Parts: sequence; C-alpha cells; structure tokens
Amino acid sequence: MNFASDNRGPAHPKIIEALAAANTGYQPSYGDDAGTDRVRARLREVFEAPQAEVFLTGTGTAANALILATLVQPWDEIYSAHFAHIRDDECNAVEFYTGGARITHVGNNDRIDPIALEKMIVSATPHGIHNAQPGAVSITQLTDAGGAYSLDQIAAIGAVAKRHGLNMHMDGARFANALVALGASPAEMTWKAGVDALSFGGTKNGCLGVEAAIFFDPSHAREFELRRKRAGHLFSKNRYLAAQLEAYLKDGHWLETAARANAAGQKLFNGLQDKIEVRIDYQADANLAFLSLPRAAHRRAIDAGAVYEVMGSLDSGDDDEMVPCRMVCDWSVEDADVERFLDLF
Amino acid sequence: MNFASDNRGPAHPKIIEALAAANTGYQPSYGDDAGTDRVRARLREVFEAPQAEVFLTGTGTAANALILATLVQPWDEIYSAHFAHIRDDECNAVEFYTGGARITHVGNNDRIDPIALEKMIVSATPHGIHNAQPGAVSITQLTDAGGAYSLDQIAAIGAVAKRHGLNMHMDGARFANALVALGASPAEMTWKAGVDALSFGGTKNGCLGVEAAIFFDPSHAREFELRRKRAGHLFSKNRYLAAQLEAYLKDGHWLETAARANAAGQKLFNGLQDKIEVRIDYQADANLAFLSLPRAAHRRAIDAGAVYEVMGSLDSGDDDEMVPCRMVCDWSVEDADVERFLDLF
Amino acid sequence: MNFASDNRGPAHPKIIEALAAANTGYQPSYGDDAGTDRVRARLREVFEAPQAEVFLTGTGTAANALILATLVQPWDEIYSAHFAHIRDDECNAVEFYTGGARITHVGNNDRIDPIALEKMIVSATPHGIHNAQPGAVSITQLTDAGGAYSLDQIAAIGAVAKRHGLNMHMDGARFANALVALGASPAEMTWKAGVDALSFGGTKNGCLGVEAAIFFDPSHAREFELRRKRAGHLFSKNRYLAAQLEAYLKDGHWLETAARANAAGQKLFNGLQDKIEVRIDYQADANLAFLSLPRAAHRRAIDAGAVYEVMGSLDSGDDDEMVPCRMVCDWSVEDADVERFLDLF
Amino acid sequence: MNFASDNRGPAHPKIIEALAAANTGYQPSYGDDAGTDRVRARLREVFEAPQAEVFLTGTGTAANALILATLVQPWDEIYSAHFAHIRDDECNAVEFYTGGARITHVGNNDRIDPIALEKMIVSATPHGIHNAQPGAVSITQLTDAGGAYSLDQIAAIGAVAKRHGLNMHMDGARFANALVALGASPAEMTWKAGVDALSFGGTKNGCLGVEAAIFFDPSHAREFELRRKRAGHLFSKNRYLAAQLEAYLKDGHWLETAARANAAGQKLFNGLQDKIEVRIDYQADANLAFLSLPRAAHRRAIDAGAVYEVMGSLDSGDDDEMVPCRMVCDWSVEDADVERFLDLF
Repeated sequence: MNFASDNRGPAHPKIIEALAAANTGYQPSYGDDAGTDRVRARLREVFEAPQAEVFLTGTGTAANALILATLVQPWDEIYSAHFAHIRDDECNAVEFYTGGARITHVGNNDRIDPIALEKMIVSATPHGIHNAQPGAVSITQLTDAGGAYSLDQIAAIGAVAKRHGLNMHMDGARFANALVALGASPAEMTWKAGVDALSFGGTKNGCLGVEAAIFFDPSHAREFELRRKRAGHLFSKNRYLAAQLEAYLKDGHWLETAARANAAGQKLFNGLQDKIEVRIDYQADANLAFLSLPRAAHRRAIDAGAVYEVMGSLDSGDDDEMVPCRMVCDWSVEDADVERFLDLF
Repeated sequence: MNFASDNRGPAHPKIIEALAAANTGYQPSYGDDAGTDRVRARLREVFEAPQAEVFLTGTGTAANALILATLVQPWDEIYSAHFAHIRDDECNAVEFYTGGARITHVGNNDRIDPIALEKMIVSATPHGIHNAQPGAVSITQLTDAGGAYSLDQIAAIGAVAKRHGLNMHMDGARFANALVALGASPAEMTWKAGVDALSFGGTKNGCLGVEAAIFFDPSHAREFELRRKRAGHLFSKNRYLAAQLEAYLKDGHWLETAARANAAGQKLFNGLQDKIEVRIDYQADANLAFLSLPRAAHRRAIDAGAVYEVMGSLDSGDDDEMVPCRMVCDWSVEDADVERFLDLF
Repeated sequence: MNFASDNRGPAHPKIIEALAAANTGYQPSYGDDAGTDRVRARLREVFEAPQAEVFLTGTGTAANALILATLVQPWDEIYSAHFAHIRDDECNAVEFYTGGARITHVGNNDRIDPIALEKMIVSATPHGIHNAQPGAVSITQLTDAGGAYSLDQIAAIGAVAKRHGLNMHMDGARFANALVALGASPAEMTWKAGVDALSFGGTKNGCLGVEAAIFFDPSHAREFELRRKRAGHLFSKNRYLAAQLEAYLKDGHWLETAARANAAGQKLFNGLQDKIEVRIDYQADANLAFLSLPRAAHRRAIDAGAVYEVMGSLDSGDDDEMVPCRMVCDWSVEDADVERFLDLF
Repeated sequence: MNFASDNRGPAHPKIIEALAAANTGYQPSYGDDAGTDRVRARLREVFEAPQAEVFLTGTGTAANALILATLVQPWDEIYSAHFAHIRDDECNAVEFYTGGARITHVGNNDRIDPIALEKMIVSATPHGIHNAQPGAVSITQLTDAGGAYSLDQIAAIGAVAKRHGLNMHMDGARFANALVALGASPAEMTWKAGVDALSFGGTKNGCLGVEAAIFFDPSHAREFELRRKRAGHLFSKNRYLAAQLEAYLKDGHWLETAARANAAGQKLFNGLQDKIEVRIDYQADANLAFLSLPRAAHRRAIDAGAVYEVMGSLDSGDDDEMVPCRMVCDWSVEDADVERFLDLF
C-alpha cells in the first residue's frame, strides 16, 4: 500500500531486459549510437513530427531547465502556474540554467488561465528595459495537482503565447498519464495545440531514469546540445538511456503502464469517496490526487502500513478534522493493494 | 579491435545483474534508499574515511563541476594541468557551475608541477581584488594522457595547496586504473596525499553511468547536495545508481576490471613497440596512451577494422611520417583482440 | 511642474562644487583615496556604527543586487514586498547577481507583513533540498509606493528575520526622505531595528550618481569588495563618488534636501485633495505618491505642461473616471511650481 | 612626479565645467536625455559610422564585459592576448557577465599574433560539443603593455576573425593614446580594420568616469541595453555621463589630452635611456611603458618622491640588478615633472 510517489516503485521488467539486451559490443558514445538514433526516429513517429529534434537526459529537472534555458533569455520571465514543479521542487534549477530568468506565476492554481496570462503579458508590453521581459510559457501536463488540461485549454494557452511571440514548454513528467486520461494523440496534446518543446517523461512511468527533450522547432537543437553537454547531462554511454526509452515506446508499452496507473488511481480516489468523507482538493484525472480525509482515517491507514504524504500532524488534533494528503499510484500498484487499502474503511 | 575509448564497450554483466536485483519493491526516492546508504558506507570503508560524505551522479562532468563549484568562489581560479578533461572536454562546465570561476593552467603538460604551481599561487598573493583569487587545485588521476601521478607527486601538490589554504580536487574518472597501476590504497592516493574531494569514476570501468563525489571533509556536504539538486543531477530513483556502484565495489570487482584493462593496454602499447616504430608521447601507465605511429601503420590498422582516434589525416601524406593517436583499452577488450591487432604489423 | 521622478531634476549645486574641489592632484585609485576614507568614517559616525563597512557604487541597482548577492546563496529565496524596485524595475538584476536566487513576494502590497513573512518562512522549514531555501528579507524604505515603515514595523520584520537566521536588507534609495518623515535617527531606522545591510541612496536626493552599500556586520566586507570589482562597479577614480557623498552628508545637507522634497510632496498631495476628488492609493508619507485623479483633471494638468506618470489613457474615456498616476517631488521643486499646479484646479 | 597610472590624476577642468553646465532643469532619465542623444550623434560622426549604436557606462570593466557578453555565448571562448586587462585585472568579470565563457590566450605576449590565432581557431573546428566553441576575439589598443597595434596588424587579426565568423572586440581604455600614436582616424583603427565593437575609454584620458560601448553592427543594441540595465550599469541621471563625453569629444579636446600624455611618456621613456641603463620590456608607443631600471635608480627615484609601480623589492638586492616597473603619464603630467625626474639621474 505505497501511494507515496510514482518514483518509488520498481522499473518495469521490460526496461531492465532492454538494458541487458543493449549491453553488447562497442557503440559510439555521447549519443552517436544506433539506439539513440532509433529512439529519435521512434519519437518523431509517435509525435507525427518528422522534423522534431530529440535529446535524452537522466532527470526531469534537467530536461525542464535545459529546455527553458534554450527558449528564454536571462532577463526574461517564464509564466507558470503557481503550483508547478519548476517552481516548488527544483531548488531554483530554472533560475540557474537560464542564468537568472524569473518564474512568474499566473494565478494561484495548478493550471494557467489563458485570460490571466494574456493580461499579464500585455501589462509588460511595450517592453521597456526596467522590467523582466516576457519570455516563455510553461505548463505541466498532467498538472502537478493531478489534473489534465483539456486539448482546448492547452490550445487556448498556446494561442496566447503565439500571439505574443512566446514559446510554450510542456513539463510532461506524467505525459503518458495525461494522454491516456484525455484519450488524445501525442501530436494533439503538443504541437497541434501550440507546444514548442516538451519534457517527455519516462522515469515516473516505469523507466529507471530517462526523459526526452523534444523540440518541435529544430532550430533550437544546436543550442540545447551545447547546454546539455556544458551541464554534464550528456551521458557518455547514452545507449542505456536510449534502450530504456526504446522499450518504453515499443508496442504501446508506455500507454499500458500509464493506463494501469490511472486505473489504480481512479479506483483508489473514487473508492475512498464511497467509503468515507473525502474532499478532492484539485481535479484528479489520472494517477495522482491531492485530497483531504478525516484525521482518523489517516491514522487508521498509516497504522495499517499505508505509505503516502500527509500534510499535517496526525499526532494531535480532532479525529474529524480534514487533513490534506497526496496519493499517487505508479504502474506497479496492484488492484489487491488498492482493495486492501479501501477495506480499511 | 576497438580502442577508441573506455566509454564505448559494454557494461560488465555483474552491473546489469545488480540493476535487475535492485528492481524490486518500493524504495524512498532521491537518495534516501537503503542501497544508497550501503554504497555510502562501503565507500567510507574502502577509503578508510568514516567521516567522508558521498553523493552519486550520473556523469563525471557533473561530479567534477559540482565539486569544484562547492570548493571555490566565482571570482577564484582553479589550477589544473594544461591537458585536462575539465579544460578540454566539458564545454565550459566548470565555468558554468562555479558561476564564472576560471581554470588556469600550470605548465603545458598532462600533470601539474608543484614548483610551478607554488610560483603561480604566490604571484597572485597578497590577494588584491583585481586579479582572480587562488581557489583550488584540480588534478586528474589517471591523467588525461594516460599517466599515473606517483603518491609522492600527489603529496607534493597537496602540500602546496595546503600551504596556501586551497582545496585539492582529484578527477578520478579512471581512478581504479591509476590505483592498480600504482598498487596503492584508495586512502593513500587521496586524503593521505592531501586530496580533499574526489570524483570517483565508475562509468569508464564497466558501469552504465555512475560516479561518486566524495568529500573527505564533510563540511561541504550540505552545499553539494543543494548544488546537485539545483542542477538536476539528483536522481529520483537513486537506487539504480547505487546498485551499480555497490556491485562495482563488491569483492574487489572494480580492481579486477581495471587490472584487465591496464593489462590489455600495456600489452598493446608494449607490443606495438616491439613491432614497429612507435613514439609514446606521454608516459602511459595504464590502459590509455597517446602515441604516434607511422602513417602507413595507421592505414593498415584502420583498413583492418581497428577503431581508435587518429589525430591527423590518413588520406594523404608520407607513409613514414609519425601521426599521433589515442588508444584506450576498456575492461572488455580481450587478449585475442590485442593480439589480432599486433599481428597486423 | 515636473513631478515625474526624483531622478529627473538637477543635482544640488553643492555636489557639483564638491566635485570641482576634489579635482586636484594625484589620488590613489580604486577607493584607496583619502576622500573615500573620510566618507567611510562619516557614515560610521552618522549611523553610530563604528564597525560598519562602507562601499560606494554608482547606481542603486548595483548596491541592491551586490548586497543581496553577498547575503544569500544562489539556491535561496529573498522575501520582498510585491511592490518592490528589486522585483519591478531592475530587469532581473537580483537574479543575475545572486546566480539565480529567487525573489518571493510576501503579500500583494508595498510592505511586508511580519506575520505573513513568518508563515512563509516556516512553510519552507525544515529545509529539504527540493524547494528554494530561505535566504534573506529585503524591504524598501521609503517604500516604492511612497510610505514609510514605522520603526516598530521594521523591528517586527527584523525580529522575524533574526528568529530564522536570515539577514535583512534595506533598499534605501529614498532613505533620507523616510528618515525625515519618521523623525528617526539613521541607527534607529537600520541596525537598531534589525537591518543588516543598507543601500544608502544619494542619487535621488541631489547627487549625480552615488549610493553607499553599508554592512553593519563587517564579516561580509571582503566578499562584497570582490563582487563589486568583478561586476565592474568599482570606479578607478572613486574620489568623485566620495566627493558627492561627503558634501551630501556635510552639515545635514542631505536632511535638508529631503525635507524640502517631502514638504513639496505633502503640499502637492494635500493641496490636491483640497481642490478635487483624489484617491490616495497607498499611504504617502514623503515626496512620492500613487494617487488617482479624475481623467479630466489629468487632462488639464498635462495640457498645462505638467509632467508626471499617468497609468492609463487620457485620449479617451469618461471625464470622471479615476485614473491612477505617480507623482514625485525632488529636492529642487519650488513652492511656486506646486502652487502653479494646484492653481490649475 | 606621479607616474603610477592614468587613473590617479585629476579630471580635465573642461570636464568638470561640462558637468556644471549640464546641471540645469529637468531631463528624462535613463539615457533618454538630449545630452545622451548628442553624444551618440557625435560618436557616429567621429567614427564615420552613422548606423553605430552607442551606450554609456561608468567603468571600462563594465563596457568590456557587457560587450563581450553580448557577442558570445556562455559555452564559447574569447581569444585574447596573454597580457590583457580582461584577463589580469577584472576579477573574472568577463566570466561573470558571459555566464561562464572562457578567455583563451593566444601566445604569451601583449598582442595577438594572427597566425597563432588562426591556428587556435582551426584546432577547435569542426566544432564538436565537448570543447569550448570559438566565440570572439578581443584586443586592447593601446595594448596593456603600452604598444599600439598597427592598422595592418589589427586588420590581419580582423581578417582571421571574419574568416571564421567571429566578432572582434577592442578594449580601447587608451583608445585616444593609440590613435594619436598611429596618426590614424577612429574609423581606420576600428571598423575599417574589422572591429565590431569598441570600449571607447574616457576615464583614463581626463574624464571622471565614463566609457562608451560602441557597436558598429546595430543588431546587438537591444541585447546590450538589457544586459546593461540588468547589471545596474544604466545610470538614472545619464546626463552626467553624457556631459563628460560631450566635452571630451568637443573640438578635438580628447586628442589634445592624449597627445600631451603621449608626449610626456615618450619624453620620460626616451629621456631615461639617455641617462641610465634601461631595458624597455615591451614596445612603448604612447604614454605607458613597462621598463626595467637598475635597482639603485629606482631607489633614488622613490627616495626623491617619485610614484610608480615597481615589480620587485627595493629593500634588498644588488644595486645593478635590473628591476622591472611600470610608468604611465596621464594628461596632467607637466614637462617640469618629467624633467625633474630625469634630473635625478
């Protein structure tokens, strides 16, 4: 009953098998290997984007910060939702990689409102030299609160960005979960809706550690490559990153694991609502939710060995008080686990 | 017959097996897993340094640049040999991570001369505010030209550093190869000789991609952790980095693979000298050498399918002219390969 | 009738005279001149802070950003009011100089609420490595909206900062105006209330271009010096910065000019209220105010040649609609000017 | 008898007068004033470059570092002479402003040899991603050792830069001294010889503190403006920088002061050679020289009150040993001073 995060469970066995299979003979280093070529081609196919440029990194923070540094100037500001990994969980990585660009929050929620975004950009226009300059827009899909932007919502934000000449980045740490939740195609959820660059996550969906930075506009490629190298994020034995993603993308494997995680999550979140008082704090469309339960329920769950993040004290306080928590199901959570958890109540 | 680099061959099967073995159940993320704890403990044991702080990264450039950024200020200079990975092969990573510190070369060789080093530090003392400030000393062991500093040489450099209050960093991308070549203990080759922080390489000696940043003075730990996180070099599923190093260090495995690589290298470099005219351009103590062969010899080798880096044109020019090249043997090179190569001449 | 900003008017003639007087003979460069020594001594006296370290810069942005870079680490966040020069008007200078630290706003106003500040710091404690770390607090006095924090308010913020081990910076671009408005002593308004470092402004109060960075804790001195030099903010002919400040501080000259500016401002803001409908948008204690007037009043003023910043269109819209503006009186504004302006209504 | 540096003497009285004259009425701030416009126009005229973009800064380090940051990327290297202000005297300012670009020395002298430069650029081509990328060339004119590159020498370096697509920067801290020494026109010594951007010095030739950054290619203008603002190098009361340069450029004033300084320097350096044993360590074409005198001569000079930089001990050592020193004459040095000094021997 571990619902702490989708980076706690094991990698999918197929990914490990792919590593073993790739571990033979000599290969050019630093991404010049055949496996990296195949992943690049495969992602172009998956995204229906033959001109896209693809680069692999070991972590999502690297992909996010390197992409944003490629898209903006140090004196720019990046518009994000208030509740965003690049703001809350990367220890100023974006500021570091961009050389001092600023993250400016649009609103106070887990998603950007396009009207508020436009207002904010306009207020910084015409662009004097005293204020930070409008630089780029960054959204997280699945949002960091567990919701999926609809295709229309993404397109509306993309339209604002385009209207003002800004690039749009998507942090897709849980890209597959959102894609499955929407039933959309990768192209629809990205470049067709105005996304210029994507952090395509593998790690949280069953890989060991690999993300792809995808630029739908290839003009950014050379700069990204230099930035990645300069940051120590280019792996000499890149074949082992490639092998993970190749297996990940093969025969829809990635969509299957995401579907399993989403199904487990929905079963968990909905099941809880059938049993006890639950407040769903943000729209939860896939495998992750912020929700509040009575303190007594948390106590029972934790005592029974459940693991997840509780934002508040269980040691003292009213039994009935609603205490917020975060629950995440990874691809490996079994139905039996979810059922065992629900049976506690 | 691939002598191109020790990052081209396969990982050792034991490392892949370790990944598979680690791939079970839930583990805390971001380095709080039990495997990371075990590696930390094991490295302290290996280095006879119970107080040392250990952090894992995926690449050597990350380890080098993050360590140096922790040891110096942005207005400092770092003294290195002229022929050094941090200068030639990291695309300004050190300058990036330090926020603009400078690499200053001591001499024109692959190793630092302690007398020249001292002279250079003294010339920047007393420290005004107009010049870069003396910051740290960085050496590569095995040097980037393939030689091993003797313990006395390291100690002499370390003594200069200490005398002037500077920290000493060792880039140990080929630490094991040097250690085996010297027949020294890890402690002797590091902190006993004045090394304050070490990039302990695993990747070039049979891992997929893992290095340990080791601080013999634990006071740097917190800053390094924040720098690593901010740079996106902290892996959420750190257990897979740990598993590699744990297997690497088990039962002397790392020393065996290094010994194999060194033996292959020495057999290759010496064998060549018995057959044809060879100029060894730098002292070559282990598995890597810069050497020059007659152009005709290179042609014969390349035509026969040998792979290694030739620094010069083979298409035109005198047969007899000596053309420099770099040859490296990784752990997986077989005796038969070396013999087949030597039999070409 | 120019109320556009206190950086538009002339310098006080005494400052020009001081430059001429300083322009004789040879002087050591880079701040080793006797005039710089005298200013340093004088400021220690004025602030009753014999141990304080003093450095001169040519601009306020330089003083602010260099001080903050000295007080925080790149992975920190700096708490400021929402309405703050370091956020709105320095084009990411703080992010640049700190190497990527973040400005986090406390509330939505021109001043920090100590309770909200404490809450925000606590929410980032205990300090993991994923979020930005609490770094420093920065307040503007006079606030950027024209108000003066009371001594108690400063002390309350300072107490929060101290309780959490953070340094407090004061952006004193209009230090003199605030001081005169409060009738406080320089020591009371700074270190006695918990301020660790001050940008002491001269430019806006009749100098040509000079600010003093004052550290009440001298341990920061060496780092600041190196940062200033590295940033190109150390003047070789520092005597001309020193001469300005020396004249500025002589015989209470600085307090006189500030008093004149404040009196003009109060006469203007209060006089307007006697004549027409006025909304004072922020508490205006000295020489600067954000206020709203009916559009018709703006039109009349602008047509009559008045110069000040109007935030909104005068070309179209209802006569009666309240349109915000900013008015500032510098030391050189004459009573007659203010009267002429008021007589328009 | 002060020959310590051309930043020690007074500003020319005309410059002070210009400040007083500019000190009247209200002017737009931040460089939008009429005086700044006039200086811009005047410099375009002086340089026969109607399209050039001109920006003022308070220090030479600011002009140099901001220009270079505008011309290169953080992963680039800047080719300079070994003996160069940007390397020796700016405390890593270039590394700071560029975000970590590297200064790479061509040779070991005070000037760049075009053949060595080309060789170095070629060796870094084709440009992989592991090494620093060729970024720009920077020369100092007058060189930091006191020599003037000939027009042909500049053009030869410029041709190499152009051939490889690099921009060329000139640090003209002593531009006027070099110009007068060569008898060339400003255009000939800059853009006609391949210079893309110039730090045009005023401070060392009689101003208080002002330099102009001149881009002969206006496409860099916007980026420079943002960089200058972000660095706190944009003065709110820019009129006082402009007034200095306007007076400086009026009626050939700048060439007169440079000619005076050069004449004094040549009289000093040549006069010494007539009197005692002197070793001129670098070609000295204008007002600055590195030269060596017998220790006894230094002792006599210092005892008599002469002030200049001696690089070595006078307290002990042979009377006859040649001890190096640096001597500089500023515009204000009088013939009588030089004669008094020469009469010591």
